[in-house]
Amino acid sequence: MRSLRISKLFVLRRYGTRVDEGWQAALRTAAVPGPVGVAQKEAYAQISPHMAATMRIFFDIEASLGNYIADVDGNVYLDAFSQISSATLGYNHPAVLAACESSDMKNFMANRPAMGYFPHSKFPQQLEQTLMRCAPTGMDGVTTMMCGSCSNENAFKAVFKAWMNRERGTDEVSDAECDAANFNKGEGNKLSIMSFKGAFHGRTFGCASCTNTRGRIKVDIPLLDFPIVDHPQLLYPLEDHAAENAAEESRCLEQVRHVIRERAQKGKPVAGMIIEPIQAEGGDRTATDSFYRQLRNICLEENVYFIVDEVQTGAGVSGKWWAHEHWGLETPPDVVTFAKKMQAAGFYFQKSLNNNWGPTIFNTFVGDPARLVILDAVLNVNEEENLTPKAAAVGDYVKDEILALSQKYSEIQNVRGRGTLVAWDHPSMAARDKVVGDAMQNGLLLGGCGNQSIRLRPSLTFDESHADEFLHLFEKTLNH
Amino acid sequence: MRSLRISKLFVLRRYGTRVDEGWQAALRTAAVPGPVGVAQKEAYAQISPHMAATMRIFFDIEASLGNYIADVDGNVYLDAFSQISSATLGYNHPAVLAACESSDMKNFMANRPAMGYFPHSKFPQQLEQTLMRCAPTGMDGVTTMMCGSCSNENAFKAVFKAWMNRERGTDEVSDAECDAANFNKGEGNKLSIMSFKGAFHGRTFGCASCTNTRGRIKVDIPLLDFPIVDHPQLLYPLEDHAAENAAEESRCLEQVRHVIRERAQKGKPVAGMIIEPIQAEGGDRTATDSFYRQLRNICLEENVYFIVDEVQTGAGVSGKWWAHEHWGLETPPDVVTFAKKMQAAGFYFQKSLNNNWGPTIFNTFVGDPARLVILDAVLNVNEEENLTPKAAAVGDYVKDEILALSQKYSEIQNVRGRGTLVAWDHPSMAARDKVVGDAMQNGLLLGGCGNQSIRLRPSLTFDESHADEFLHLFEKTLNH
Repeated sequence: MRSLRISKLFVLRRYGTRVDEGWQAALRTAAVPGPVGVAQKEAYAQISPHMAATMRIFFDIEASLGNYIADVDGNVYLDAFSQISSATLGYNHPAVLAACESSDMKNFMANRPAMGYFPHSKFPQQLEQTLMRCAPTGMDGVTTMMCGSCSNENAFKAVFKAWMNRERGTDEVSDAECDAANFNKGEGNKLSIMSFKGAFHGRTFGCASCTNTRGRIKVDIPLLDFPIVDHPQLLYPLEDHAAENAAEESRCLEQVRHVIRERAQKGKPVAGMIIEPIQAEGGDRTATDSFYRQLRNICLEENVYFIVDEVQTGAGVSGKWWAHEHWGLETPPDVVTFAKKMQAAGFYFQKSLNNNWGPTIFNTFVGDPARLVILDAVLNVNEEENLTPKAAAVGDYVKDEILALSQKYSEIQNVRGRGTLVAWDHPSMAARDKVVGDAMQNGLLLGGCGNQSIRLRPSLTFDESHADEFLHLFEKTLNH
Repeated sequence: MRSLRISKLFVLRRYGTRVDEGWQAALRTAAVPGPVGVAQKEAYAQISPHMAATMRIFFDIEASLGNYIADVDGNVYLDAFSQISSATLGYNHPAVLAACESSDMKNFMANRPAMGYFPHSKFPQQLEQTLMRCAPTGMDGVTTMMCGSCSNENAFKAVFKAWMNRERGTDEVSDAECDAANFNKGEGNKLSIMSFKGAFHGRTFGCASCTNTRGRIKVDIPLLDFPIVDHPQLLYPLEDHAAENAAEESRCLEQVRHVIRERAQKGKPVAGMIIEPIQAEGGDRTATDSFYRQLRNICLEENVYFIVDEVQTGAGVSGKWWAHEHWGLETPPDVVTFAKKMQAAGFYFQKSLNNNWGPTIFNTFVGDPARLVILDAVLNVNEEENLTPKAAAVGDYVKDEILALSQKYSEIQNVRGRGTLVAWDHPSMAARDKVVGDAMQNGLLLGGCGNQSIRLRPSLTFDESHADEFLHLFEKTLNH
């Protein structure tokens, strides 16, 4: 273990200095949130009670730096959650600040273009320089959108249109078809998107019909009749359970094919399938690369479009820019959606999918070029500082160390992950919630996921020294 | 007419000087788009073909000012469409530029908070200073969201939850209910939102199920079983058709009540109703203030939540900050949604509606405080320069002048509007599209709506001198 660590340290030194050199977690108040935060929350609850109900701390932006988030009471936490996995380079990164002081940023913010009609004059170049520069292998085109949910909703619509065009043999749609759809009675009502148990794809109505993390998200709202099938539940450590896991994956693949065929027979065909490389909100559940290759092939065989939701797994955190690029697919996905750490949201697609999107894949703004200015800065820093391979190395390091902790603390189970997308289980939801709460009182900000998991979701600038501080604070938390 | 005009000029002088003093529409190329725009579009179509297919011009931000938009060929158009009704103060307004150069703007852009967990430390004050400062009468709370569609989708969810809580007599939801919903089989499936023929509420799946402008928007996608009822089709001029219009409105109100009761009897109750004060995308169709008062009362009597979609009508353009405040409601709406010219998106609600939104009304960012920085600047300028009463006066002026034109040009029909939300009809879609296209060749940017209407949708800084230039360019277009 020790020699491994030394060789890894050697590797990690390649990645440059810390933006937050000299910083560490430090609490000023006896408990957190402190008195200022508590008082402010009361006022907040008068205006926006539900937002006050879910909040954890008031984020003092100017007092935060790198991987350290400050609250309104002056407490500083090591942030292993990074704004629900969205702060790509941490806080107040100089390259991002410079991008935000640029004339492009000012122009785009002060004059937001309705991009579907009036794209700004540099937009084609901006797309080339940002989204196409980091496009997944095999993807031909891209569209910006507003957020992860908006990206998934529009990806679904693109898939439904492609499916119907294939069925009718033309992309010429009759007026009668349009009229029926206009009153919610169109042929499209028969179609669905298949998703997986434990999936999270968003909370708008189309997305919510594919989300299966917690019923409390979806209860009381009408949903579309979309099928949700089993996701492999792998046993860890993987090397000790190869046979059971292979059987579990085969079972799930058979179910996928069965449900697709059953729906087709009932005249309710599955038009598309959406899957996350790692089911993040659902508890960092994943499968083997072989599973995804077989899944992709089933989609090809059954004429189902294959959508990969990289909203939480994209932007380098898996150790590749796109997590699905670990799979070694022979045929790339039909659609890849993104948001969060990509700063901008939207989806990539194969050109074969683009036909008569017309007014269907459209909205007032169709994305936000200001976010692409930040993505450009992120991509530059990622290249200059090799942040993606760094995420692989730091992730391996921290996973090994948590595995070592799991030998000492039996409550840590099923340590798993790829890159810094590392997670582990606690014995129950209550036990997990207690650790997350206690960690905060020790200056460590963690995110839970699934029923009883904790997920590491740090920024791309989280390095081995941050990992060491995390390990120290986490073990301190376990010892209480 | 002449004396009326002089007295209006006197009124309009109160509103200060033009940001774009000395500017006028001017085309440099023989046809628009010019050669640079045409060439750039070809490259663009390789990356994002559908966005290239819908675009009109490449918007040169730095060369645009006030109510004048420049394209990549150096052509300058008078903009009466304002980025699909979203550029509140026109282009490069000094107050908006200053807001975009502020440290708050930089902080929020470089460090986007996940507002549901980590609201920035000034957020409660920011809400008070912006969204609550211009809150509609009778609304207690507000939540930010991402865009107009996101606001409507979340407003629907709030309404569904309130309806189910009322039915079950508690906001305690059982695990069994959550489990059923998690697999798209929950009780909520029986519920619906009622909307009106010609309505536009967005294109995500919940919103699309309430949108009824053009079937082409919705064709081929699965939709929810939501009822769409008749919207009054008023005859103009209103003063000549009072009796027919009153009968038409009564007919529609009866249908509303009938469908609500019919659905209730079938066990498919209508939980909420959504309506725009002016059906903008649907052709600037509206009804009398009395109609909306009666509609609101039906909702109260039938226990249906009443949502007003002010995405295109809010932010002063109607001559009041919120268009529904013209109605004189005794009981305010349950929910008011906003986006576009408000810069920020979200919805206001009565506190009675807020109960167990929990993880349902939630997403990664829950809005964007950077947009509130711009809204703050907009509200300041609106107050300093009396822009809302100015919109009323300028709108009245331009409507009178178009009415006068309609005496001269028989193809202009049904002139109507409130504030600068002025519209009129042409004899057919083809005739309308030709006028919009020809106007562009004369340096005038217009937006169509509905089947055969043109809508004025200028910024709040559009004044009488811009209106005169518009009238000149429009008449020039009609004479060709």
